[in-house]
Amino acid sequence: GMDGAPPPASPAGLSAYVAVSQLLGLTLLATTGAWLGRYRGGVAWHSPLQFNVHPLCMVLGMVFLQGDALLVYRVFRHEAKHSTKVLHALLHGLALVIALVGIVAVFESHRTKGIPDMYSLHSWCGMAAFVLYLLQWLLGCGFFLLPGASFSLRGWYKPRHIFFGIALFALSIAACLLGITEMLLFNIRDSYSHFMPEGILANTLGVMLVAFGLVVGYVLTRDDWKRPPLAEELALSMDFKTLTEGESPGGGS
Amino acid sequence: GMDGAPPPASPAGLSAYVAVSQLLGLTLLATTGAWLGRYRGGVAWHSPLQFNVHPLCMVLGMVFLQGDALLVYRVFRHEAKHSTKVLHALLHGLALVIALVGIVAVFESHRTKGIPDMYSLHSWCGMAAFVLYLLQWLLGCGFFLLPGASFSLRGWYKPRHIFFGIALFALSIAACLLGITEMLLFNIRDSYSHFMPEGILANTLGVMLVAFGLVVGYVLTRDDWKRPPLAEELALSMDFKTLTEGESPGGGS
Repeated sequence: GMDGAPPPASPAGLSAYVAVSQLLGLTLLATTGAWLGRYRGGVAWHSPLQFNVHPLCMVLGMVFLQGDALLVYRVFRHEAKHSTKVLHALLHGLALVIALVGIVAVFESHRTKGIPDMYSLHSWCGMAAFVLYLLQWLLGCGFFLLPGASFSLRGWYKPRHIFFGIALFALSIAACLLGITEMLLFNIRDSYSHFMPEGILANTLGVMLVAFGLVVGYVLTRDDWKRPPLAEELALSMDFKTLTEGESPGGGS
Repeated sequence: GMDGAPPPASPAGLSAYVAVSQLLGLTLLATTGAWLGRYRGGVAWHSPLQFNVHPLCMVLGMVFLQGDALLVYRVFRHEAKHSTKVLHALLHGLALVIALVGIVAVFESHRTKGIPDMYSLHSWCGMAAFVLYLLQWLLGCGFFLLPGASFSLRGWYKPRHIFFGIALFALSIAACLLGITEMLLFNIRDSYSHFMPEGILANTLGVMLVAFGLVVGYVLTRDDWKRPPLAEELALSMDFKTLTEGESPGGGS
């Protein structure tokens, strides 16, 4: 640090779990690329392969980058709060841009091939995840980065932001699993039940998506790995407690 | 109560969320029944309709009853801890038995029709959810109901039990979404993309499964709705803190 003292160390367990999450995340991307490259003809924009941009972008944006954006408060738990917050917003913003490219890819591919949009459970869950994720990002910027929101309003929104953030991450992974199942049933339908290599590879990708979600979720929710609160945040939480305790007795209907 | 004093009230918000969860849960069951009855010929055991026992049992056991078993510590938050714990274990046990019936139904149906087992991502995720859920139930009984485990061991396991409990509930819902997608792509394949009523109904069931998971997850994770700890539990948590703080300085590698 600037004062010459070494920065406080993170718990050894936290570092190990974060390392495993990053190995899993990179393996996810490599496996998605291997599936598309080896069995689905590769990835290209203006071509019949444009569809393949969709799974690659969604795994990169809605899973890997979204997960890493959630982890920054654990990885940089002793850094200044504001820098970490800006990094959190930037990573989510990048994830949203990449996911948008992936969504444009599937709509353009459908239009070219004359396939209807938005009829499947995958498309409903995936679009809900994307729209709510964008909304959550806008609300997060409004509440925590812009100067307008009061301490007590931020304190009210923060636990909701955290819950919906983790829930949308889980929904994004579920939407990926649905997409994998759709792709396999459309492309290898009958040979899927004969344990063909493509089916095994794509199923393994699905299992790794679940594993990535579990590891990231564990790191995020473990109490003793949470970011130690600063004096300012403690003051805020007490301010909020006073406020809600003042409201509570008359709040029942 | 036995001492004549009225029992402490639950927060109004908690009661409203629990009521919504139960309405959603019952609607889930009715929608599953409507899908199977109206479009899939109904449900029967020794018949070609045996497969249909599977989705009904999984939604009832792995989603509705599993979710309600998780909620008992919030619904009965002022009851004696031991009774609530027994109810929690009984509801999970009932969920496991019903899920087992649903699993037997699909394996017998596959055998009758000559369809291979365990090749799809749905079967991998669903079987993982069931086996880990059974394991979690056995560990839960061993740690919390049998007298052998020490206070500090229980304190070590409890946050892990809670995390994996919520994670397995989410995985169970994801497995249901995969099962819905498989059923639709096998049964109404081409008309699915024409927004046929069966597809819309089954997609809506999927969205309601996600909504049930969100409402239950929100009730479970909201800090101020957690069960107020008893004196005994506070003593345990301090005991555990002393233990881990004693280990921590030498714990790094």
